[in-house]
Amino acid sequence: MTSLSAGASAPTSSTGTPFGRIPVTKVSPVVEGGAYPAKAAVGEPIPIRATVFREGHDAVNATVVLTDPTGAERREPMHPSTPAGFDWWAAEVTLETEGRWSFRVEGWDDPWATWVHTAEIKIPAGIDVTLVCTEGKALFATSAASATTAGDEAAARLLREAHAALDSDQQVEDRLEVVLSDEVRAAMAAYGPRLLTSPSPDYPIFVDRRAALYASWYEFFPRSQGARFDSDTQRWVSGTFDSSYERVEAAAAMGFDVIYLPPVHPIGTSFRKGPNNTLTPGPADPGSPWAIGNVEGGHDAIHPDLGDLESFDRFVAKVRSHGMEVAMDFALQASPDHPWVTDHPEWFSERADGSIAYAENPPKKYQDIYPINFDRDREGIYAESLRLLRFWMSHGVRIFRVDNPHTKPVNFWAWLLAEVRRTDPDVFFLAEAFTRPAMMHALGKAGFQQGYTYFTWRNEKWEIEEYLTELSTSSDSFFRPNFFVNTPDILPMFLQLGGKTAFTIRAVLAATLAPTWGVYSGFELFENAPLGHGREEYLDSEKFQYRPRDWQGAEASGEHLNLLLGTLNAIRREHPALQQLRNLHFHTAANPEVVVYSKRVEDDVVIVVTSVDPLNSHESEIVLDMAELGLETADVFLVHDELTGQTWRWGQRAFVRLTVDDPAHVLTLVRPGTRYPGQAPLANDTAPTTAAEQ
Amino acid sequence: MTSLSAGASAPTSSTGTPFGRIPVTKVSPVVEGGAYPAKAAVGEPIPIRATVFREGHDAVNATVVLTDPTGAERREPMHPSTPAGFDWWAAEVTLETEGRWSFRVEGWDDPWATWVHTAEIKIPAGIDVTLVCTEGKALFATSAASATTAGDEAAARLLREAHAALDSDQQVEDRLEVVLSDEVRAAMAAYGPRLLTSPSPDYPIFVDRRAALYASWYEFFPRSQGARFDSDTQRWVSGTFDSSYERVEAAAAMGFDVIYLPPVHPIGTSFRKGPNNTLTPGPADPGSPWAIGNVEGGHDAIHPDLGDLESFDRFVAKVRSHGMEVAMDFALQASPDHPWVTDHPEWFSERADGSIAYAENPPKKYQDIYPINFDRDREGIYAESLRLLRFWMSHGVRIFRVDNPHTKPVNFWAWLLAEVRRTDPDVFFLAEAFTRPAMMHALGKAGFQQGYTYFTWRNEKWEIEEYLTELSTSSDSFFRPNFFVNTPDILPMFLQLGGKTAFTIRAVLAATLAPTWGVYSGFELFENAPLGHGREEYLDSEKFQYRPRDWQGAEASGEHLNLLLGTLNAIRREHPALQQLRNLHFHTAANPEVVVYSKRVEDDVVIVVTSVDPLNSHESEIVLDMAELGLETADVFLVHDELTGQTWRWGQRAFVRLTVDDPAHVLTLVRPGTRYPGQAPLANDTAPTTAAEQ
Repeated sequence: MTSLSAGASAPTSSTGTPFGRIPVTKVSPVVEGGAYPAKAAVGEPIPIRATVFREGHDAVNATVVLTDPTGAERREPMHPSTPAGFDWWAAEVTLETEGRWSFRVEGWDDPWATWVHTAEIKIPAGIDVTLVCTEGKALFATSAASATTAGDEAAARLLREAHAALDSDQQVEDRLEVVLSDEVRAAMAAYGPRLLTSPSPDYPIFVDRRAALYASWYEFFPRSQGARFDSDTQRWVSGTFDSSYERVEAAAAMGFDVIYLPPVHPIGTSFRKGPNNTLTPGPADPGSPWAIGNVEGGHDAIHPDLGDLESFDRFVAKVRSHGMEVAMDFALQASPDHPWVTDHPEWFSERADGSIAYAENPPKKYQDIYPINFDRDREGIYAESLRLLRFWMSHGVRIFRVDNPHTKPVNFWAWLLAEVRRTDPDVFFLAEAFTRPAMMHALGKAGFQQGYTYFTWRNEKWEIEEYLTELSTSSDSFFRPNFFVNTPDILPMFLQLGGKTAFTIRAVLAATLAPTWGVYSGFELFENAPLGHGREEYLDSEKFQYRPRDWQGAEASGEHLNLLLGTLNAIRREHPALQQLRNLHFHTAANPEVVVYSKRVEDDVVIVVTSVDPLNSHESEIVLDMAELGLETADVFLVHDELTGQTWRWGQRAFVRLTVDDPAHVLTLVRPGTRYPGQAPLANDTAPTTAAEQ
Repeated sequence: MTSLSAGASAPTSSTGTPFGRIPVTKVSPVVEGGAYPAKAAVGEPIPIRATVFREGHDAVNATVVLTDPTGAERREPMHPSTPAGFDWWAAEVTLETEGRWSFRVEGWDDPWATWVHTAEIKIPAGIDVTLVCTEGKALFATSAASATTAGDEAAARLLREAHAALDSDQQVEDRLEVVLSDEVRAAMAAYGPRLLTSPSPDYPIFVDRRAALYASWYEFFPRSQGARFDSDTQRWVSGTFDSSYERVEAAAAMGFDVIYLPPVHPIGTSFRKGPNNTLTPGPADPGSPWAIGNVEGGHDAIHPDLGDLESFDRFVAKVRSHGMEVAMDFALQASPDHPWVTDHPEWFSERADGSIAYAENPPKKYQDIYPINFDRDREGIYAESLRLLRFWMSHGVRIFRVDNPHTKPVNFWAWLLAEVRRTDPDVFFLAEAFTRPAMMHALGKAGFQQGYTYFTWRNEKWEIEEYLTELSTSSDSFFRPNFFVNTPDILPMFLQLGGKTAFTIRAVLAATLAPTWGVYSGFELFENAPLGHGREEYLDSEKFQYRPRDWQGAEASGEHLNLLLGTLNAIRREHPALQQLRNLHFHTAANPEVVVYSKRVEDDVVIVVTSVDPLNSHESEIVLDMAELGLETADVFLVHDELTGQTWRWGQRAFVRLTVDDPAHVLTLVRPGTRYPGQAPLANDTAPTTAAEQ
C-alpha cells in the first residue's frame, strides 16, 4: 500500500493547503494566501474567521493561536458565527504589541461538547444512563489530570467533584445539573480533551502603531507660509520652515496630529512649470515641488529657499512639541537637473535616439519629470531608495506620503516597505494612488499602511454606503483608507458647486467615516475656484506658485471652518468609536439625501446623521438598528449633538431636520439609566418608545 | 544592502504567492490554493481568469500556459474581460486529454502594444514622428529575427516588410496603416517581444472523461426486478441480476447511460429493519442493502439472493452491451454481522463498556449499522478501502456512488480518490451527501467528481435561479451536480403534492439544467405515496422490502413517463448545449411561476420555458437576452418545441402559455436565414420583431 502521508501519493502540488483531519478553510484575514501580512493596529479589534467542520455528528471546536513578535503563543477560543448552517467560526482578537504577529486556526474534535450533547438528550430520556455516566467520568478524570499538570488545582478539584457527582446517589438529572454548571463548563473549556487538532498554516498580521489607523492630517506648503511679494524687487520671497510655525500652531489648535509637507527638496529649472501649469514660467516662479532636484541637490537635500537641514530639524521638533508629527513626501522621480541624471543615467529609460525619456501619457508630455526605470539597475535604485528613507528617518520622519506609487513596480514597494518594517516597525507609508482597484489593493497588500481613496468622488448616499461597506468589511485586512477632503491636485466638484455647506458635509463625513482623515490648507477658507469649467483642479494652484493666505482676515470675518475642524478632531479624540474602521454600521433613513451611520466601541456610541445635499434642507424619518447600538428595540435614550450642543430623546425611530446651515448631526448616545450632564435620568418605563426630535 | 531576492528580506512566509514584476492575482479556477485540481471534462470549455495589471502607462498582456498530462506545454492568449477598469483577463480553454493538467497565467510587458498606442496618437498628431518610427523599426527587427528562429519565414518576411515600410517615402500615416495591418498584428502577437514575464504558480486541473460531466442515470434494485411472492411458501423470492435484464433494456430504451445499483452485498441479520423501517422484521424480510455484511461475506461479496460474481459480471456485460455502464454503491459501514467486526474490531469505535458503537444521532439509534472509525487503524482501513475499490474496478465498475461520504473524514476521501485517479483516471465518484454547504463543497474539492445537490428542495423560481447560478458560475470549478429527481431516501414534497404535472416539471428541469441527471425507478410510474404526513420518505420503501412494479400494466394504461424521459434523454444527446454546466443563462419572464433559461454551445441553442406551479396553468410575456443566444436584438427566429413538435416564430419578446398538461417547452432555436424542416426561410426585413406564440 502506498504511504498515507498527504504529500506522498496525492499529485504533487507546490501551492495551497490540503484539508487536515478537521478541515479548516476560508481563514481570514489572509492576504494573497499569506504572502503579505494582514493589517492591524495596536489595540484594534481584529476579526478572525474560518470555516471549520467535520464528518458525522461529533462536535467540532476551533481556537485561534496567536504568535506575538517575540514568538510567544496565546490561544483564544472561537465561536460559531451566524448565519447558522455555514460552519463559520469567529473570534475577535486584540493585539497589543507593535510588530509582526502570526495566527493560525486550529480545528479540533471536542469530546466534551459531544458528551454534553449526548447527555442532555439521553439522560432526561433515560437512555443508556449508566454508559453515559461512565463516559462522562472518564472525561472528567483525564481533564482533572490536565488541570493538575497545568497547576490549576481549583479546576482540578472542581473536575474531580464532577467525576464524583456522576457516581453519586442523586437523581441522574440532578447529577447532570451539577456537572453542567457554568464552573464545570469553564474548567472543561480550559482542560477538556482536544483531539485530532488540525492547524491551518500560520498567517502573518503586522500590528502598526495606533497612528497608522487613527490620526488627523493637515497639509500645507511651507513656502507659502510667510511668503511675501517684495515690491522693491518685484519678486516673491519664499516662506521657510521657520516662518511656518504659525500654521503648525493653528493645526495643533484645530486638533490635527500629522503635518504633511509636499516635497521640500531643490526644484529643477529645466522645463519648469509656471502658474497654472503653464510652460512659460517667469524667472522667479518657484516651480512644482514634485520636480525634484537641481544643482543644489536631490532627494536628500533641502530647498535653500525653505532653509537647511538644521531648520528642517527645528521644524520637526516644533511639530513634535505640539504633540504632532511630520509626514514627508516621497516622490521617486527626478527633474532633468537632478544629480542622478548625470551620476546614474542607468536609473532612467533611454529612448531610441539616446535621450532620456521624460514622463508621458501620450499625447501629454511632462518634460520637467524623468521617471525612474526600476528594471535597468535594480540593485542600485533599490538601495538608493532605502538609503533616502533611512536618511529622513534619521531626521525624525516616521511617516511618508508616497507620490504616485502606482507608477512604480508593486514588487519594488513590497521589498522596500518590508525592509523598513523589519527594522523600524513604527514607520508607515501613505500611498497617493488614485487609480484602478487592482493596483489600489495591491499597494495595500504589498505593505502601504494607508491609501488615498475614491471617497473624493463618493457623494451620493448609495455610493457612500456601498464604498464604506467595502472599506470596512471587505478590503479592511489590506487597505486602510485616509480620507482627504481635498488635495493640491483635487478640488472635488462637490466643493465647487455646493457652497460652504458642501465643505461642512465633506468634513463631517471624512472625520467620522474614517479613523484617518486629512485636510489640505485652504479648505477651511472655502477655497473652491477651479482651473476651468469641469476641471477638478485649483485655479492658481499652490503647486506652481506661492499662495500666502489671509488667515487673520478670515478669523476677523468668521469666514472659516477652523471651529468645525477643531470640534470634529476633538470629538474623534474623545470617542474611541471614531478611532476604528471596522465598526461602521449604516442605519435606515427614508430620505435618499440623508445618510445615517453609527460607530460603537463597547459603551461608546457615535451616531452621525448627515445630508448629502448641500443646496437644500431635508427632513427624514430614520430607523435605527438598535442591536448595533447595544440597545433593546423598545429602549429610549438621549442623543447629544456634539456639533450644536443640543440633546434629544430618541427611540428606534426618530425624526431629523437637516438644513443648509446645520446639515449634519454628530450624536453621542446616552444610555438608558445613565445621566447626561444637566439632564434627568431616563426611565424606560415612563418614556414613549418613539420620540420626535425637538 | 540586503539581498533583493523576494524571500530573503521579506518576512518569512510559508504560504501564498508574492507579487511578481507584473502582478498576476485572483487566478481561477484554483481549488484551496491549488491543493486540489479544479474540475474539467474532456472537450469542456473552461474559463481561465486572472487579474493582471502593472505600474504606469505601458501595456500589459497575459497568456495561459497549459501543461498536458505528458508534460507538454501550450500557450493560449488571454483577453481583457468586462467590465472594464478591473484589470480582469480571461481565456476559454478546452482540454482534450483525460488526466492531470496544470495551468499558469503569465503577465508580461508588451512593448508592441505600447508602441501601437503611442504611434496611433503621436503619428496623426505629428509628434516625435522620427523617434516613433525608429522605435517601431527596432521592434520589427527583433520580432522578425524571432520569427526566423521559430522557422516561420512568412511572418519574418512580413515583419521585415513592416520594418522597411517605416523607412519608406510614403506619407507617415500611410506607413502606419501598413504596419498596423491585421497580418502584421498577428505576426507581432506571435513573435513580438514579451518582457518582464511574470508567471503565477502552476495550478492543477484534472480532466475527467466526458461521462463525469454528461450522463443520464437510472437507479433500480435488482432484487425487486423479477421478485415474486411464492404463495406456497408464503415468502418472497428475490429478483436477481439475471432477472433484471428487462429493466436494463427499458433504461436503454429511455436513453439512460448509467445503471446505478444500491449495494449488492450480503445483508446483516442483527437488528435488521423490517418494512417501513420498523424494528420488528419478519423472518423473510430482506433488510436494507446498506446494512452490509454477514457470514456470507462483506463488501467484496455478492448477496447470494442476487447471484454471484459471475452473474454480476454478466450483468455488467449486459449493461455495457446496451452502451451503458454500471455505477456501484460504495457504503463504508458494516452490519454487526460483517466479517470486519470479528476480524478487525479496531476499525470500529469502542464504547466505555467495551461494546462496539453503533450509529447514533441521539436519541435515534441505528443498531443495524456500525460506522467505521478512521482514526484507530488508519493504515488498515485506508488500505482495505482501496482494495475494495480496485476489486470492483477489476470487475468492470468504473463509477462509484458513495453512500454518506460526509460521515467519513474529508482527508480520507482526498487520499483515496487521488490514489484511484493516479492509476485509473477514468474512474469517477458521486458523493451522496445531503448536508451543509461547507462539507458538500469540501467533498467536491477533495476529489468527488460529482455530488448530489439541493436541487431536490429548490422548487420556486427564485430558488432555482439562485442555486443554478451558484452551481454554474461560482462552485463550478469543484462541485459538479448530479440532479436526481428522486432517490429511495427522498420523495420530495413537490412530487407528493403536485400530481403528474410535478413529475414532468421536475424531469424537464433536471434533464435540462444539469448535464448529469438521475431517476430512481418508480418515478416514471408517478409513485408518490409518503410514509406519513410531512415525511419525505416513500411508503413501503424499497429499501426495506421487495417492490416489483407492474411495468406492463403501466404500458398498457399509458400511465407512465417513459416517453418523456426518453424524449428528454434524446434531446440531451442531440444537443451539445445541454451537455455543459457553465453555459446556463436565465432570461426574464414576467410571471413569477415561469422560469426561462437557455444553454448554448456555438450554434446549438436550447431554450427551456417551464412552469414551476404544477397545479395551475400560466401565461407570461418573456424577454430574451438576445446576445446570450447569439442573436441581434431585432432578430426573429423559429423555436421548435422538442417535446410537442410545435414551431413558433419568436423575437426578443414572446408570449407563452403553459398548462397543467403541457407545463414546459424545450425549444431548439432555428437561426434567421436557416431553414427549418417544412418551414419557409425567415427574413428579418419582413417579419415583425415581436411575434406572439401561435
